[in-house]
Amino acid sequence: MPSAPLTAGNSRVKEARKLSRRSVRTERRLFLADGPKAVEAALEVEGCVVEVFATVEATERYAAWPGSAPAWAVVDDRALASLSDSVTPAGVVAVCRFVDVPVSSLFLEERREPVTRPSLVAICADVRDPGNAGTVIRTADAAGADAVVLAGASVDAYNPKTVRASVGSLFHVPLAVEPDVPAAVAAARAAGLTVLAADGAGEVDLDHVGDLLARRTAWLFGNEAWGLPAEVAALADHRVRIPIHGRAESLNLSTAAALCLYASASAQRR
Amino acid sequence: MPSAPLTAGNSRVKEARKLSRRSVRTERRLFLADGPKAVEAALEVEGCVVEVFATVEATERYAAWPGSAPAWAVVDDRALASLSDSVTPAGVVAVCRFVDVPVSSLFLEERREPVTRPSLVAICADVRDPGNAGTVIRTADAAGADAVVLAGASVDAYNPKTVRASVGSLFHVPLAVEPDVPAAVAAARAAGLTVLAADGAGEVDLDHVGDLLARRTAWLFGNEAWGLPAEVAALADHRVRIPIHGRAESLNLSTAAALCLYASASAQRR
Repeated sequence: MPSAPLTAGNSRVKEARKLSRRSVRTERRLFLADGPKAVEAALEVEGCVVEVFATVEATERYAAWPGSAPAWAVVDDRALASLSDSVTPAGVVAVCRFVDVPVSSLFLEERREPVTRPSLVAICADVRDPGNAGTVIRTADAAGADAVVLAGASVDAYNPKTVRASVGSLFHVPLAVEPDVPAAVAAARAAGLTVLAADGAGEVDLDHVGDLLARRTAWLFGNEAWGLPAEVAALADHRVRIPIHGRAESLNLSTAAALCLYASASAQRR
Repeated sequence: MPSAPLTAGNSRVKEARKLSRRSVRTERRLFLADGPKAVEAALEVEGCVVEVFATVEATERYAAWPGSAPAWAVVDDRALASLSDSVTPAGVVAVCRFVDVPVSSLFLEERREPVTRPSLVAICADVRDPGNAGTVIRTADAAGADAVVLAGASVDAYNPKTVRASVGSLFHVPLAVEPDVPAAVAAARAAGLTVLAADGAGEVDLDHVGDLLARRTAWLFGNEAWGLPAEVAALADHRVRIPIHGRAESLNLSTAAALCLYASASAQRR
């Protein structure tokens, strides 16, 4: 006979709940993946998931998931809600090990099968909004990027809003967290990548950048509010502006990243 | 001697504050534009701004703005905050007249100078997230689109989060609100526009769509959660998929819209 669902007061649930605090996440190198898309993607990464908390209903619904977590705990609705920052929790939350790797190894070992040299990378400098960071990770994944670096004073990659906005892509794309932006750029260049900065004041227009885009490229993106400081943009080989055809002052970070990454992806495939 | 700043209890402030409710906005066809970028853009639209509320500090800072509102009221910080849904109000809020026009007139009278036929339009069907709607409007503006239609059961265009995410572009790009999606598509087609649906299951790849993109085009975008229902996608002349090169399941609405609108903008300019 199955045991009763765990309640919000259960010690395992309480320990997991502490991961809503960044300081606890950083100390334990553990975070929460919330919802079926994130948990399913996490389960596909070997050794990533420590334990899964799911409601009775979600346990039945997701029984066919591939892989198996070391521990699957059935919890009641209130316990599940206490682990989720979603207004409408989807019934399943996983405790996951951090997935980031040092930026130095990011460009050396390519984690995809088959093994290939990284040819498209996104480096975000000082991205502050968790939703933006997650959307950039999702977009980089869609564009076939080989890696994402959250550089400088960027938001915590494991913030629940970042994890949610990435819609599983946090578990797909190799990720590094590097507080030193010049070090991230240097690592990309050492790996033979051309570094292009997305910069509203750039000297090259994305529509007229030509063969440059077909090179193996690391894109450098700035903060959503103030873009790239001149000294950071100067680290790049070229500064590329997205043309503004109308009267908007600028694009937001994730749409700019989509245009740049997809422009490279298309050019590299031509 | 200038009079004292109005307080939150002032009757004008109280009347303006009621515009935080959609029902009141709809009845009065008035809404609030919050922050200097939105207010400045609103002031450039003739007859749009009914009155401006600003703190003493903001009144001094923005004294050089072009145009003049029929009424400029200096308010205290608390009154200003009561009109703003921002966590950090920027000191200025304007009461504005609705800017949308009927979809039937959107394609007939082109409001730009010089007068041109619309050649790039975004139609959003059932967009539900206010931030997404605002970002699509901003992106459409950046891509040089001539109009945006919020169609079907889309979010209120005058929701404070939509207005904020548009960063002024709500006042730049002609906008229509049309509950009937087929009517919006029909109006675009009647104006001679080719209708392309952005659809993950589309029969044409955005990278291989060729000359089609150089045509005068209305893009049809679906809901952020479930995309375009088949019967809506079927209204388009072609269904275009954005290639997913990695393992992401899809792109989010605003990044997808950016890729489609910019692809057309580039092709139309070549």
